[in-house]
Amino acid sequence: MNYFGAIEAGGTKFACAIGKENGEIIKKLIVPTDKPEVTIPQIIDFFKKEKATPICGIGIACFGPLDVNEKSLTYGEITTTPKLAWKNFNIVKAFKKHFDLPIGFDTDVNGAALGEHFYGAAKGLDTFIYVTVGTGIGVGGMVRGNLMHGLIHPEMGHIIIPQRKDDDFIGVCPYHKNNCLEGLASGPSMHKRWKVDKLSTLEMSHIAWDLEAYYLAIAIANWIMCISPQIVIIGGGVMHYEHLLFKIRKDVQKILNGYLHSEKIVTDKINDYIVKPFLKDNSGITGAIALAKKALRQN
Amino acid sequence: MNYFGAIEAGGTKFACAIGKENGEIIKKLIVPTDKPEVTIPQIIDFFKKEKATPICGIGIACFGPLDVNEKSLTYGEITTTPKLAWKNFNIVKAFKKHFDLPIGFDTDVNGAALGEHFYGAAKGLDTFIYVTVGTGIGVGGMVRGNLMHGLIHPEMGHIIIPQRKDDDFIGVCPYHKNNCLEGLASGPSMHKRWKVDKLSTLEMSHIAWDLEAYYLAIAIANWIMCISPQIVIIGGGVMHYEHLLFKIRKDVQKILNGYLHSEKIVTDKINDYIVKPFLKDNSGITGAIALAKKALRQN
Repeated sequence: MNYFGAIEAGGTKFACAIGKENGEIIKKLIVPTDKPEVTIPQIIDFFKKEKATPICGIGIACFGPLDVNEKSLTYGEITTTPKLAWKNFNIVKAFKKHFDLPIGFDTDVNGAALGEHFYGAAKGLDTFIYVTVGTGIGVGGMVRGNLMHGLIHPEMGHIIIPQRKDDDFIGVCPYHKNNCLEGLASGPSMHKRWKVDKLSTLEMSHIAWDLEAYYLAIAIANWIMCISPQIVIIGGGVMHYEHLLFKIRKDVQKILNGYLHSEKIVTDKINDYIVKPFLKDNSGITGAIALAKKALRQN
Repeated sequence: MNYFGAIEAGGTKFACAIGKENGEIIKKLIVPTDKPEVTIPQIIDFFKKEKATPICGIGIACFGPLDVNEKSLTYGEITTTPKLAWKNFNIVKAFKKHFDLPIGFDTDVNGAALGEHFYGAAKGLDTFIYVTVGTGIGVGGMVRGNLMHGLIHPEMGHIIIPQRKDDDFIGVCPYHKNNCLEGLASGPSMHKRWKVDKLSTLEMSHIAWDLEAYYLAIAIANWIMCISPQIVIIGGGVMHYEHLLFKIRKDVQKILNGYLHSEKIVTDKINDYIVKPFLKDNSGITGAIALAKKALRQN
């Protein structure tokens, strides 16, 4: 059985792991997101220590935006991030210098999508999306077996949606204010709109959940019409409040209004169509293992 | 050089052609969309007459919704169309019965997208969308070299968008009224909202064009964020009014507001990023040739 080095690079922490080919995590390390010259060496050490079971590939699922175009001269770079220490930092090259191994590299959400494809809710499917609703709203996806890239990579969390008439919140997106999904429905938007530190203080009957479900349902309906996914996986901190998922499914049906004639959408089968991540909060790090495995295969 | 039979099946007419491998159309036939038993035999005759240059494949780019899943028992069917004579009609089988040839089959818009990919504005690109704005609004596309299918096929024309505050039109979409793009911005919505038979009676300075550009720009911005296309091709009857395209490009830039850092989007290069179909009104029929060619290759 092959072993892989896995990195889920986030804005506040890097989750690192040694993982087996079957997705099992055998060792984990959390490193705070400091400057690259502080953070990266700790991970290199962690991977190099595995001498009994040397890794045969590395997977990096990284916060973005990224240059994921393998033909580009700057492939491997974190591009225009507001985290200045990481701006134009080439994270792939940083590891290539120390490991003569295949390195898989993609966005955090595409990584998580691949994790669910290899080991989770999207096994055997070739077209689907993975959504995370937390500090931001991110979406990764696969179309006919390929992780979604193009000009750059999708940024589906920022799609323009209509603000509900009873909501006059100003939005938290610095680019699109109250016009985009992330501005209206990310975790920070809920904290700010309802003036709470913790979402758990909002009771289940609070209108906050109704509004949140409504916005997420519009976005999911739009993503379904754009991608035609065989499954929609939705996780992230905000989705830990499980009553939200039930509301979302009903609202998606209301919004689509029977237009898409699939029993997965119009019947109760929607419960198996819009689902939680099978890998729970491990989609990302397991996805990094999957990226490494894929890179080894393609090598 | 191989010859192919091509069919662009629409709601009012079937455009048929004999085409060369290089996309050139050498003979054309238009048949009205009557019942299948009236329409189909005329096309079969047209193809069979080509004895000097027998066709070696057939491509069908068809109005939908369709079953385009090759593993499905009903592959080749037009499924839930309101045109009752065609509901559940298997158009692929209808031709298979008479021709022992590879048959390529996809939606009209995916067909047009493939036409632009083989012979037009998307040559050499692997991720892009083709949009048509006419009686309806349809979008076809390719992601990393594959035409977009999934649970069904995308229905991007019906995405939910915000209605502009100065517009109180009730919308023309029977499913989503004034909530979706097609309801607010299709050709029929313009005729009904502004009470005109011909769009040419609306002067270039009329607010109709400003509003139309605004809605199409929101949709295009959303599609860009969902698919990350390397190019956006937009045609169809409404787009024959060319001043519209200039407004759309500007509005897309305003709406995205610099969030997607690609010079193709934030600079004047947008003129080569959101473009008219290279094949003009022949994207569909040329696309049907491309579908036939692809089917022969895969055979």
